[in-house]
Amino acid sequence: MNETTHLGKRRRIIDGYEKVTGTAHYTADLSLAGMLHARPVLSLYPHARIRSIDAEAARAMPGVVAVLTGPDLNRGRVAHSRPSMLLAEDVVVFAGQPVAVVVATSEAKAADAASLLDIDYEVLEHVEDAEQALQDEVFVWPQGVPVAGGSMASLHGGDAGERGEAKISNIDQSRVFERGDVQAALAQAHAVVERRYTNAWVHQSYMEPHAVVAQPGGRPGQVTVYTSTQGQYAVRSEVARTLGLRERDVRIEPMTVGGGFGAKYGIIDSLVAAVALQVRRPVRMVLSRSEDMLTTMPAPGTRIQVKLGADAEGQLVALDVQVVIENGAFSFGHAGIIATMIGGMYRCANVRIQTQEVLTHRAPTGAYRAPGVPQALFALESSIDELARTLGQDPLDLRYQNAVGAGDLTGTGQPWPDIGFKACLEQARAHPIWRKRGERPNEGVGVAAGGWPGAFSPAGAVCRVDTDGTVRLHVGSVDISGVHSSMVLIAAETLGVDPDTVEIVQGTTDSGPFAPASGGSQITISLSGAVLEASTQVRNQLLDLAAGHFEAHREDVELVEGQARVKGVPGNTIGIGQLAQLSQRQAGGPGPVVAEGRAAIKAGAPGFTVQFVRVHVDPDTALVTPLEAVSIQDVGYALNPLLVEGQMHGGTAQGLSMGMYEGLHFAGGTLTNPNYLEYVFPRASDLPPIEAIIVEHPSEHGPFGARIVGEPPITAGAAAVANAVRDAAGVRVTELPVTSEALWRLMQDRN
Amino acid sequence: MNETTHLGKRRRIIDGYEKVTGTAHYTADLSLAGMLHARPVLSLYPHARIRSIDAEAARAMPGVVAVLTGPDLNRGRVAHSRPSMLLAEDVVVFAGQPVAVVVATSEAKAADAASLLDIDYEVLEHVEDAEQALQDEVFVWPQGVPVAGGSMASLHGGDAGERGEAKISNIDQSRVFERGDVQAALAQAHAVVERRYTNAWVHQSYMEPHAVVAQPGGRPGQVTVYTSTQGQYAVRSEVARTLGLRERDVRIEPMTVGGGFGAKYGIIDSLVAAVALQVRRPVRMVLSRSEDMLTTMPAPGTRIQVKLGADAEGQLVALDVQVVIENGAFSFGHAGIIATMIGGMYRCANVRIQTQEVLTHRAPTGAYRAPGVPQALFALESSIDELARTLGQDPLDLRYQNAVGAGDLTGTGQPWPDIGFKACLEQARAHPIWRKRGERPNEGVGVAAGGWPGAFSPAGAVCRVDTDGTVRLHVGSVDISGVHSSMVLIAAETLGVDPDTVEIVQGTTDSGPFAPASGGSQITISLSGAVLEASTQVRNQLLDLAAGHFEAHREDVELVEGQARVKGVPGNTIGIGQLAQLSQRQAGGPGPVVAEGRAAIKAGAPGFTVQFVRVHVDPDTALVTPLEAVSIQDVGYALNPLLVEGQMHGGTAQGLSMGMYEGLHFAGGTLTNPNYLEYVFPRASDLPPIEAIIVEHPSEHGPFGARIVGEPPITAGAAAVANAVRDAAGVRVTELPVTSEALWRLMQDRN
Repeated sequence: MNETTHLGKRRRIIDGYEKVTGTAHYTADLSLAGMLHARPVLSLYPHARIRSIDAEAARAMPGVVAVLTGPDLNRGRVAHSRPSMLLAEDVVVFAGQPVAVVVATSEAKAADAASLLDIDYEVLEHVEDAEQALQDEVFVWPQGVPVAGGSMASLHGGDAGERGEAKISNIDQSRVFERGDVQAALAQAHAVVERRYTNAWVHQSYMEPHAVVAQPGGRPGQVTVYTSTQGQYAVRSEVARTLGLRERDVRIEPMTVGGGFGAKYGIIDSLVAAVALQVRRPVRMVLSRSEDMLTTMPAPGTRIQVKLGADAEGQLVALDVQVVIENGAFSFGHAGIIATMIGGMYRCANVRIQTQEVLTHRAPTGAYRAPGVPQALFALESSIDELARTLGQDPLDLRYQNAVGAGDLTGTGQPWPDIGFKACLEQARAHPIWRKRGERPNEGVGVAAGGWPGAFSPAGAVCRVDTDGTVRLHVGSVDISGVHSSMVLIAAETLGVDPDTVEIVQGTTDSGPFAPASGGSQITISLSGAVLEASTQVRNQLLDLAAGHFEAHREDVELVEGQARVKGVPGNTIGIGQLAQLSQRQAGGPGPVVAEGRAAIKAGAPGFTVQFVRVHVDPDTALVTPLEAVSIQDVGYALNPLLVEGQMHGGTAQGLSMGMYEGLHFAGGTLTNPNYLEYVFPRASDLPPIEAIIVEHPSEHGPFGARIVGEPPITAGAAAVANAVRDAAGVRVTELPVTSEALWRLMQDRN
Repeated sequence: MNETTHLGKRRRIIDGYEKVTGTAHYTADLSLAGMLHARPVLSLYPHARIRSIDAEAARAMPGVVAVLTGPDLNRGRVAHSRPSMLLAEDVVVFAGQPVAVVVATSEAKAADAASLLDIDYEVLEHVEDAEQALQDEVFVWPQGVPVAGGSMASLHGGDAGERGEAKISNIDQSRVFERGDVQAALAQAHAVVERRYTNAWVHQSYMEPHAVVAQPGGRPGQVTVYTSTQGQYAVRSEVARTLGLRERDVRIEPMTVGGGFGAKYGIIDSLVAAVALQVRRPVRMVLSRSEDMLTTMPAPGTRIQVKLGADAEGQLVALDVQVVIENGAFSFGHAGIIATMIGGMYRCANVRIQTQEVLTHRAPTGAYRAPGVPQALFALESSIDELARTLGQDPLDLRYQNAVGAGDLTGTGQPWPDIGFKACLEQARAHPIWRKRGERPNEGVGVAAGGWPGAFSPAGAVCRVDTDGTVRLHVGSVDISGVHSSMVLIAAETLGVDPDTVEIVQGTTDSGPFAPASGGSQITISLSGAVLEASTQVRNQLLDLAAGHFEAHREDVELVEGQARVKGVPGNTIGIGQLAQLSQRQAGGPGPVVAEGRAAIKAGAPGFTVQFVRVHVDPDTALVTPLEAVSIQDVGYALNPLLVEGQMHGGTAQGLSMGMYEGLHFAGGTLTNPNYLEYVFPRASDLPPIEAIIVEHPSEHGPFGARIVGEPPITAGAAAVANAVRDAAGVRVTELPVTSEALWRLMQDRN
């Protein structure tokens, strides 16, 4: 980058004021004329047959407009994924599955009536967990797993792979990714470590539960959906497909999002749209926290067996991995991305990764920031740590020696482009937390690496200058992570204006322009090119107008601080708003100042991270206290370092939390802690200070050299916690989260 | 035009379904969360001092949130036009001026409380009409007329002219437009006719009264205004200027408009925005019919003295006109456009037009479809008719002989571009209604000509193709006359798609792109170029994508019926939606299919009309029954003849109505017929069948040769009625509307 005025500088987020003062409009704030309120009735059982639903008492309640059940909405359509599930019909397959919807004139009336619904279930034997599922004795889908054309995983940049042939089994999909000869390499290895790692299901735990308002349109089959989503185009496709509507008849209006983390791709949107079309009134459904945790799509549990071999010099020679992904009633297709990363962090000639997606009678799982990778790297990075101990090598040195670089392969055999993994490791080696480790008793420092390949997609943007000098950027992206704050800087830098004069216009599916969903860490790198192109065209239009105004050559005109002027004549200026006004009024002129940019990034810009955690482990109680965390991440180029650090802090906190606190508990197939009293979720005071260290190893493909940012920081924290506990307490934890009880038992076993 | 598939073909309007079925969303349908309702309290007196306002009882009513008066909202700002008037403070200047606003939780509560307001007025002497105003004894503005920088007339394509020097007078502005030596020419003329013509004030009589919802934004000073308007950008400027806000903080969302006709430029928008900002809640104000007629901006009365001289061959030699425009408390600046047309229909070397804009204590006047021209041409075309009688010439021949063409001058001295006035007259001469006139007793046929120069402004548009093949046109224009239906045809023609697959996306002031307001007949010709450019770019993008897909040369690819194919290989096609999908997904590709067009039309494309009316006049009662009307209009090129005819029917009906029915009645300075029971407004059965004959004399500047359409058809009807009555009854009516009572008296006088 050349010298910049705004780009690369720390600048506060553009929508902070609204969020802090409470004036931001969330979906639950929306109230439309004639709007009704819907409450879902969720199944109490993980697997049961619905014998009958008696809605008479509910329907008789004052204010109740409708009680809808499966036959009212499904119209024979078969669900093949969580978002395509409307209401259960005949059989429920998870506790938390919507069985009925009560629609009333107020939310309270709907809730009261919902409690009067009398549903007669015949409880069926259910599949509790992966172990039971793998026995293939009781089946989640005795008639076979419903399938459809699309794959949701592709939304998140994962590799969905090919489905196996149809058979009645709980094993939804088995895949093998292999290169070299793992068996032979392991047999000849100087050192081999082997362990099995498991982790709890966790929930994305966004602040704002799922909330949707759907409004029938002006013509039959038209519907507008106001929703808390990460990607309006993805939701439009989903709603249209699920309800059999034309895409053009489905209008999605993305609202302010109170946290997404991969979960906000329209889980209840089709249901609410179907209800609104049925009752021909606007309908709002806002899930309660418990409903949200019961009926949405959490992150899956995994059981990962790792066998890792190295030669005497510490060169990895074999990696043999077996992955069981414990899904709910539908799998999300995590296998591809797990394989990509678990087999793609370190150079290794002989790799075999076997994956099984298995189904249970639980809520279908979904995406959670870097889906599957924290789990995968918990296994891999713990194994690397153990291998270093076996070899007597420094774990950072071992990583550096084997770390992948440009041209090395991912676990699925694709070559990496130029990446900054080693640059992060170099920063890590110099950090005091590492150099001073081992100085205090009962304390340990753990290190772990992580990363994410990142998706990338074409995107469009429209830029215009208004008569008061305001620059408007019209984009079809959703801002869940500050991405629009960076787009503002790109436009401000290009046009020579104060970033405060650049406003974002949020596109709906109708107004566009198209942008991919804000997931897979792709939105900044995908959108930047379009914004840059649109801004550059607008810059050229302004220079042309100014050249005409000053009767000067265009090359002699410059844009500085919202003004155009002839170089060397700083006193004589014209505001860009005045130029826009001239252009808007000039008959026969070039027309309003507006331009569209369209761009498709050429290739991905993967991001890597190395993280440290320092913990204290109480030798008597095994209480783990995190003392300090360091998150080092290659972001290529930090468009706005303040926001990049925010992403690093947030992701690191979530990784640590997966390591130390979070877990959904199931008993008898039912989630037993669907609330924030019982689901252990760290407060700010439960987390250590996190130091964010930005590494800028420019990407050749990302805009201005920028790389993906959002997902890498979550990928290493859980493994770093486990390695820190190993360092402090001398025992290897193989199950997440690291509870004091389990750790204490391990410490007792060692003694 | 080459051979077309969609352009130039009759096709129904795109939003007819919603309007007919009642699902279109008008402003009054809008209900926002926490929204309050506002009722205005209007002055009962044309001129009075407000001694005090006792709001105690109103404030005590349940549900009343606020009672606001002038000092609450005006903040020292002085109004200089009707839209900038918030609430009266100290003095009221017209009966109907808002004095207070009551805000309550329901409209009924606000109305009830409003009736309890106790306002103590000191009634002041008022200026009743133009005659009294011209005496300059009682003054509308004893301290001088408040002024501001801008001129509203410029919105409508009129010539605002220069204001005279400041003095205390009811004559707001006097202008003289002169060429040649009128006095001398009149003295030497072979024949001279002279008469004085007057007309009543009329109201625009849109179906939907003014309605505004204003909602405070997320930050102080931000406001969103949902409004029934013809132009969101004009309203934004008005609201920002009136309330002292930054333009970027004012967001205007244009709603479906139930009729505008020049009146929907934000009359109460600033007031409602001020109220919403004051109470910090969304506020809706929907005027009742009576309030709307009392407090908005009707069309002015005029008194026009015409002296017209010709030589023995029928060549016009002198036109001497004195125009008094009777405004309310503010003038709108009609003088320029009246002079343009009254002195611009016929070639004449010696012209003098003297205009006076005078003020009275009535509601400030405003624009009504071709503002001022029906009044002006009532005077001119009646005079031409009389001149023909005096000369013994056929009135159509006299018009043809003198009609202006390219290079001839308007009344303000500008040369006309190539126009189709004579082409219309040629059509008229051949029409049976003219050739068969005089065949039946007590019937008469009148002819009159009209026209409108038309405004033109730069505009932008964005076109994109969606993955399901839907083409979206994003425009900043408001559709009050079917203009968007024509834009759809332009895009469909350019892209080779079914017009039903083209959707319009309505831009707000934020999302843009900029377009001028839908007034001055300019929107179709101003917007078409931008839509054509955007569509053409998208066409090129699609051809590139298809060429890549088929591995063919781009020149060999064609777009037909929504599909791309290689010429000569009709079997192998790919839908444009699929091309868009490929492009949206292709990493490294060109990006989404989207393009912006920006265009500024080079010069105007004026439109002319010739109209016939056949009437029966009862010799005993003087009842005038319209039997038949013919409206011949040069539209250059009819983009959609069905909609052009709709414009011609509507405008002709309004012109006939001004001739025969409509008039606001004032007594004691107060409007006495502010409702549709007493304001005579024709039902469909009161109007004759109207034959619309389209003449296509292509404009060199308008898109595809198209000319302005909306305003010409209203300009000739009133004069045609007067000339028909002259033909049937033998008397010259010089006052509009032609009432039976006045006509009977004239007929009595003649006998």
